[in-house]
Amino acid sequence: MATAGKVIKCKAAVAWEAGKPLSIEEVEVAPPQAMEVRLKILYTALCHTDVYFWEAKGQTPVFPRIFGHEAGGIVESVGEGVTELSPGDHVLPVFTGECGDCRHCLSEESNLCDLLRINTDRGAMIGDGQTRFTARGQPVYHFLGTSTFSEYTVVHVGCIAKIHPAAPLDKVCVLSCGISTGFGATVNVAKPPKGCTVAIFGLGAVGLAAMEGARISGASRIIGVDLNPAKFELAKKFGCTDFVNPKDYDKPVQQVIIEMTNGGVDRSVECTGNAAAMISAFECVHDGWGVAVLVGVAGKDAAFKTHPTNFLNERTLRGTFFGNYKPRTDLPGVVEMYMNKELELEKFITHSVPFSEINTAFDLMLSGESLRCIIRMED
Amino acid sequence: MATAGKVIKCKAAVAWEAGKPLSIEEVEVAPPQAMEVRLKILYTALCHTDVYFWEAKGQTPVFPRIFGHEAGGIVESVGEGVTELSPGDHVLPVFTGECGDCRHCLSEESNLCDLLRINTDRGAMIGDGQTRFTARGQPVYHFLGTSTFSEYTVVHVGCIAKIHPAAPLDKVCVLSCGISTGFGATVNVAKPPKGCTVAIFGLGAVGLAAMEGARISGASRIIGVDLNPAKFELAKKFGCTDFVNPKDYDKPVQQVIIEMTNGGVDRSVECTGNAAAMISAFECVHDGWGVAVLVGVAGKDAAFKTHPTNFLNERTLRGTFFGNYKPRTDLPGVVEMYMNKELELEKFITHSVPFSEINTAFDLMLSGESLRCIIRMED
Repeated sequence: MATAGKVIKCKAAVAWEAGKPLSIEEVEVAPPQAMEVRLKILYTALCHTDVYFWEAKGQTPVFPRIFGHEAGGIVESVGEGVTELSPGDHVLPVFTGECGDCRHCLSEESNLCDLLRINTDRGAMIGDGQTRFTARGQPVYHFLGTSTFSEYTVVHVGCIAKIHPAAPLDKVCVLSCGISTGFGATVNVAKPPKGCTVAIFGLGAVGLAAMEGARISGASRIIGVDLNPAKFELAKKFGCTDFVNPKDYDKPVQQVIIEMTNGGVDRSVECTGNAAAMISAFECVHDGWGVAVLVGVAGKDAAFKTHPTNFLNERTLRGTFFGNYKPRTDLPGVVEMYMNKELELEKFITHSVPFSEINTAFDLMLSGESLRCIIRMED
Repeated sequence: MATAGKVIKCKAAVAWEAGKPLSIEEVEVAPPQAMEVRLKILYTALCHTDVYFWEAKGQTPVFPRIFGHEAGGIVESVGEGVTELSPGDHVLPVFTGECGDCRHCLSEESNLCDLLRINTDRGAMIGDGQTRFTARGQPVYHFLGTSTFSEYTVVHVGCIAKIHPAAPLDKVCVLSCGISTGFGATVNVAKPPKGCTVAIFGLGAVGLAAMEGARISGASRIIGVDLNPAKFELAKKFGCTDFVNPKDYDKPVQQVIIEMTNGGVDRSVECTGNAAAMISAFECVHDGWGVAVLVGVAGKDAAFKTHPTNFLNERTLRGTFFGNYKPRTDLPGVVEMYMNKELELEKFITHSVPFSEINTAFDLMLSGESLRCIIRMED
């Protein structure tokens, strides 16, 4: 509490230029302003989205910037108007928010908050349009409103989920983004009935989390689809019973799956972002009741295209964002699923490095070796 | 009962050639075989699908043929193995069936029966591959397994809904096809919550039935979309509050609707079969919770195409067939909705002609004057 209201000097991993190794150095973190919270980050993980915007191929580059958006931390101090959080609370910062007042937050179905919806271009706080970080005497931009590659960070209160204080932050930090995205896509959107068949397209962390959702839902057969055959062994831990590599066939993968399953799977979840995979994921579900769910983010020029009859034969296609979880309302419950040993998070955590070796986490992700690498801030 | 087991001679309207007026003449109707039922048709209506296959532009021509599939009648006699129907029962024959035993019939969600699913090319009974009609000494083909433009017809028991004997057959006969298709698309699939906004694309009988579903569901705003401005006055009877003619704008109709509704409608139902209208119907629903339902049947070369982000922003697209009603299980309940004055059928019935003037019903539909024209068999 001695630090409340004061600038905090601490270490952060600053990205000065696109694609260049992060530089760990001293930054100044300003106190939280109205509706903001300053957090001490204890554990953060690396997600593909960090790497994608760090590489900045094609997007507007926003540098210098502090990346990071999967993390667990503790509230250090709160700004004016923040009543639901207090110093010492255990929290997960989230890249998208929940203001609680807009039409989306008031809808039971949507988590696309009008005020705090993800904005990858924004590098400042929404309250005053300023950054809270300074390094080498110059402002450093935020990323996704979270910037967790810093010992301290400032986050809008609407982007913070307060969780059970006994939850191990070095594990549940991965629920801030990818794992919840995939898991929620299955359990909240695809909703596979017990005993059904499910296909998962793309077996990265998000796809495996979607698979974990299918396993927990009691799917009898889970077909993993990936171009990398090495994924099958890994995927078995998540309930994968069959593996399909589209490269092994000279016919469309949807046809392969339809033949394997006597007409198609009951549910599919697409986690690659590739438009052709989206089409396959839709066309491989059974007529009459099949539901396909799109999770992967497509490029600007992508198109989803199919014959309308595929819909008329009673198939459903839905998309989801962050697994349809409302961050503040729903994440505490997902944390408790982990604590109750329903959801297994350890399987996703393949590596762990001290903060000083954060660039190793980037290398591990770029080489495809890691699912999730935890970065220990206090080491 | 004196006719049971014997050939019945009666009048039917035979289509000898594509696009030529039907010829009312004497036909012989053979007794029902195993799992078949012979019906006395009292009222039949004309649907676009009859006209489409009578014109036979592009499809394989199947002639001579007896068209007709929206009808109400009474069981005259039953074939071997038929236990659920008896002579005298009031029934609606349906163009698609429900065997009760296949995976689709056993699923709570599907009505796409494996055995009796609609087959527009088939001109004979599925039991023995023969027709039950003879005219001028030659076999006459069936249409959709119903062929209701005949005083007597033979139908598979799985394609017959037994309804309340007090239901007026001259009204409820329209529930055999189009009205149930549109109404069910809204109430069974789009499921608009009370107070929501709904857009209906295409204001023919099916679209107006979809609109009737929105009205009954308590939608607060119902936007009708049609290229014919004369439809608005008619549509008001079905709850239409706003009318949009895409021809009146130089921007896509989805954009017009999004601007009218501050972000999009909550539900949309597409009843034209035009691929561009399908895309508009999908893209005009609100992100976060919008659901679009496709009803209209598209041509062979049609494509549904959209940017995947439209799905990822939490929109849902579903297709439906026959309003997701299982014909035998569900139609009796729809008939009772009419009897309880929940569903208004009179609004759909714009014309009525005696059987001898059946070709007038074709003229009225082709000119766009009629929604439904009832053909009175006994007049």
